[in-house]
Amino acid sequence: MAEEHVVQEKALRSFCEEVLTKLGVPKADAQTVTDVLVVADLRGIESHGVARLGRYVTGLKKGFMKPTDQSRIVKETKATALMDGGQSLGQVVGKRGMDLAIRKARDTAIGVVAVRNSNHYGIAGYYTLMALEHDLMGVSMTNAGPLVVPTFGRTAILGTNPISLAAPAKKEKAFVLDMATSTVPRGKVEVYNRLGQPMPHGWAVDETGRSSTDPKRVLNALANRLGGGLLPLGGEGEDLGGHKGYGLALMVDVLGGVLSGAATGLQVYADEQRPNVGHFFMALDPAAFRPLDEFRRDMDRLARELKDSPKAHGQDRIYVHGEKSFARMEKYRQEGIPLDPKVVENLKKIGADLGVPWST
Amino acid sequence: MAEEHVVQEKALRSFCEEVLTKLGVPKADAQTVTDVLVVADLRGIESHGVARLGRYVTGLKKGFMKPTDQSRIVKETKATALMDGGQSLGQVVGKRGMDLAIRKARDTAIGVVAVRNSNHYGIAGYYTLMALEHDLMGVSMTNAGPLVVPTFGRTAILGTNPISLAAPAKKEKAFVLDMATSTVPRGKVEVYNRLGQPMPHGWAVDETGRSSTDPKRVLNALANRLGGGLLPLGGEGEDLGGHKGYGLALMVDVLGGVLSGAATGLQVYADEQRPNVGHFFMALDPAAFRPLDEFRRDMDRLARELKDSPKAHGQDRIYVHGEKSFARMEKYRQEGIPLDPKVVENLKKIGADLGVPWST
Repeated sequence: MAEEHVVQEKALRSFCEEVLTKLGVPKADAQTVTDVLVVADLRGIESHGVARLGRYVTGLKKGFMKPTDQSRIVKETKATALMDGGQSLGQVVGKRGMDLAIRKARDTAIGVVAVRNSNHYGIAGYYTLMALEHDLMGVSMTNAGPLVVPTFGRTAILGTNPISLAAPAKKEKAFVLDMATSTVPRGKVEVYNRLGQPMPHGWAVDETGRSSTDPKRVLNALANRLGGGLLPLGGEGEDLGGHKGYGLALMVDVLGGVLSGAATGLQVYADEQRPNVGHFFMALDPAAFRPLDEFRRDMDRLARELKDSPKAHGQDRIYVHGEKSFARMEKYRQEGIPLDPKVVENLKKIGADLGVPWST
Repeated sequence: MAEEHVVQEKALRSFCEEVLTKLGVPKADAQTVTDVLVVADLRGIESHGVARLGRYVTGLKKGFMKPTDQSRIVKETKATALMDGGQSLGQVVGKRGMDLAIRKARDTAIGVVAVRNSNHYGIAGYYTLMALEHDLMGVSMTNAGPLVVPTFGRTAILGTNPISLAAPAKKEKAFVLDMATSTVPRGKVEVYNRLGQPMPHGWAVDETGRSSTDPKRVLNALANRLGGGLLPLGGEGEDLGGHKGYGLALMVDVLGGVLSGAATGLQVYADEQRPNVGHFFMALDPAAFRPLDEFRRDMDRLARELKDSPKAHGQDRIYVHGEKSFARMEKYRQEGIPLDPKVVENLKKIGADLGVPWST
């Protein structure tokens, strides 16, 4: 791989925002979409960072992502709401959905919002981080286009359906779990393909439904709809718990997809003109159960107990989820964000097309 | 292994109920505890079935499980509650907690109940099945004594912390996910030890914190507190997603333990006189989001899409979670429940001690 380009956060934000506003996205919404993308890069989830700007540009150009927010509340109780995203940008809809869940949680200790008819919303963790700003716990899930093969199957039916849960701590960093329910994302298979290296067993199956170490074969089967795809967390079959990862992916499709009336399984993205992605958001107020300070203190104690415990042979550190990302965020905010040269090249091309200069 | 004993559900229930009432448990509560145990056996989760009756007998005799229900609501809002289990039997407390969550969900579309100071509550799925009876979705989690080693660690800090989520379907069986967040339960390591067979990598680590295929070494290290323990779902390190399973186990300790103010991590069961187990229950009304019938119909569609999809080479069936257990339940209710002869021997001994005849 060629050397990485390091870009400054501020300049990168300006560029993305300008690209989006050129496509008719109002300033505030352009800032939201940009924030979700840049926070992904800052937290080291490059697969969901500005590398994806092109997909949103395509969505806006093709019209299946609406530039202005068309989302609306369809049904509502004190603690719950159903939202229709109106095919708007997933980040704009997602932020509105989580904001609503947070507002409800401040009133009734808990808020649950299910969203249908949305688009790809970026990293699930963005929305749970929002809850932390209000001293709330947050949950965020979304379904996604089919990439994951159910246990004993050979065709991708479910998405990599991520789960995020965040909970505030005191002196320690907040706990921010943000995980796809597949063993690895497709991007990791693509990296091994570029490097021409065999993958570990447990990542993906080929068109026969058996675990494969050949990234080219898996990607080819997926691209030509011959079958194959990513394995759920736990890998092939049931011996290492693959049925559990499959169950978690299905759970996310139930909460994000079925509950909201969005597309599910193979139907997500089946109609290019109407992806109909579904999200699930929840905010929960720990202070409804215990004094917030006690909750925070015990979060710290649990984190310290894990981190201070003896390390495995050859390891020198145990992490709590979110910790690595917070450290990366601090570093990248100071030193700039490293981007793959191909990503930079793509961004420049997008900018050139729309008359937005790349000057980071 | 010797031949299995087949016992009839009704006789098994009578026996367990009589044992419990002999120890001072009121009839209704004895029925609850028995129901949780027998339903586990009926669903094929023998590790959490009547094989565990002895532990409850011990708990009642030693006094860290109170025979009469001491649980109380400590703090309450319309949609949430904190309960203190008063060291009562976990099943009695758990049932009361889930009942409360269900009642709240019927009023406000959602109910969340966190419970501290409880005991082992049996299978997580028992409580989510309760929600199904009210056409609600249910969530149930509990922390447990330390058995699972965090990624890059060598000491068991977290429990096998199970997650259950159930959602009603229409013609298809309900979706009932009920999974420990470790790759396998300790019982599976014990089975391999009895058989003298090597385990697959990814199940457990020895006292060095490295994946081990030697069940004797792992169990010995655990028993003598030398280190070692079960691996989280995803196995050793991060290559196959072990950090995700670790994150899920930690999430359950946050929701079940920290939120309620129960013991967490190493503190669960640290004081033999006060196990202080924590549970988390949630009930959610799908009808607050969509007409129930549409929800059920789409649950069916998603289940059928998964089950009807092409099978992996050598496989002839894809399952949806809960399906195997519902089938087993039907079969065992008709044909009787197969029990390990050692379990039967133990039950007979318990009965003899308390003057309860074994007549199944």
